Amino acid sequence: MNPLAIPEIVIRRIPLYLRTLALLREQGQTVTSSQEIGDRLGISATQIRKDLSYFGEFGKQGTGYDVRYLEEQLCRILQVDRDWSLVLIGAGHLGKAILSYGGFEEGGFSIAAVLDKDRRKIGSRIGDLEVQDIASLPEAIAEHHVRIAVVAVPVSDAQDVVDALVDAGVKAILSYAPSPLALPEDVHVEYIDPVVGLQSMTYYLDPLHR
Amino acid sequence: MNPLAIPEIVIRRIPLYLRTLALLREQGQTVTSSQEIGDRLGISATQIRKDLSYFGEFGKQGTGYDVRYLEEQLCRILQVDRDWSLVLIGAGHLGKAILSYGGFEEGGFSIAAVLDKDRRKIGSRIGDLEVQDIASLPEAIAEHHVRIAVVAVPVSDAQDVVDALVDAGVKAILSYAPSPLALPEDVHVEYIDPVVGLQSMTYYLDPLHR
Repeated sequence: MNPLAIPEIVIRRIPLYLRTLALLREQGQTVTSSQEIGDRLGISATQIRKDLSYFGEFGKQGTGYDVRYLEEQLCRILQVDRDWSLVLIGAGHLGKAILSYGGFEEGGFSIAAVLDKDRRKIGSRIGDLEVQDIASLPEAIAEHHVRIAVVAVPVSDAQDVVDALVDAGVKAILSYAPSPLALPEDVHVEYIDPVVGLQSMTYYLDPLHR
Repeated sequence: MNPLAIPEIVIRRIPLYLRTLALLREQGQTVTSSQEIGDRLGISATQIRKDLSYFGEFGKQGTGYDVRYLEEQLCRILQVDRDWSLVLIGAGHLGKAILSYGGFEEGGFSIAAVLDKDRRKIGSRIGDLEVQDIASLPEAIAEHHVRIAVVAVPVSDAQDVVDALVDAGVKAILSYAPSPLALPEDVHVEYIDPVVGLQSMTYYLDPLHR
């Protein structure tokens, strides 16, 4: 199937299904249903079956999905059945917090290098990594075969950093900066935006009780 | 309309529409279309029109949407046409990064208090706020009429913190910890999960070039 035919919004939901399946597996569950996954995510069972049908048949009518099998298949589809090396740009508070985040490895990612432009930070160690000069970005990207970068720099620096990443061959950027980035069409970007998370909840809150 | 009849996944998309509208407005655009919003988000125009139709009629056939009017209406629907006070739990690297994040105010949120259990952090200042003892959580929540908390503590502390937040009356939690939280049914939770963002992009990357 032509991958361009699958809507981006479907691809964006697959990681949520994957997270739910990992959780079910950790809880010792071996079989699940579109209904159960949907209940946990606030998505209809019909939507989940429709999304999965883009990629094939993963369960039998009436018996549900094998948790481990479906998880493996979705990992394969998203290409996270292998390890992706990331570079992290920014060694401030946010960069340090990202380096100590415990969820990357299981998701298929590892941070191979951290770079900053601040001379006071370059050469210092954070965990297992030594902060490198942003000037050595092309070498770091080539050395670790990096296609994905995490951007944790102030808004005012974000576009410059992203331009340098694109020049160095990066094809996917996860940005923590609260501003939209200008990127070539073949470079993917996702934003970590806490406001979107917060605004998804205020709808349900009773303002009378504030 | 019964708010329970609107699927959660629709509510979760409204903040994305809002972000796109704010961006269009900042770029000086006054009129937009479901097609344009959809192109920017990777969502079909049909989906956007269907989502908006849950809440009413916001545009005229053929003339599109007034950017500012639609933005105001979506703010009203999500109840972010007012300011919500947040408490932030955790004054480590992540907490400090969150406090310096520039996007909350425009989104309808302000951090009214930051609390930690670490005696070395309590009493120190971060920006305009003094880090308070987590023991004073009920007082902080009452004083600032808080319904929403941001959790930026290590995984090992997250559930304890969340239990205390629920006891103190918090009804919505934005968690940065990479572990699922057990919560009563009437408390909403959203997770900041960088892995979901990363996995939404690997699908499109060419592994041959790694």
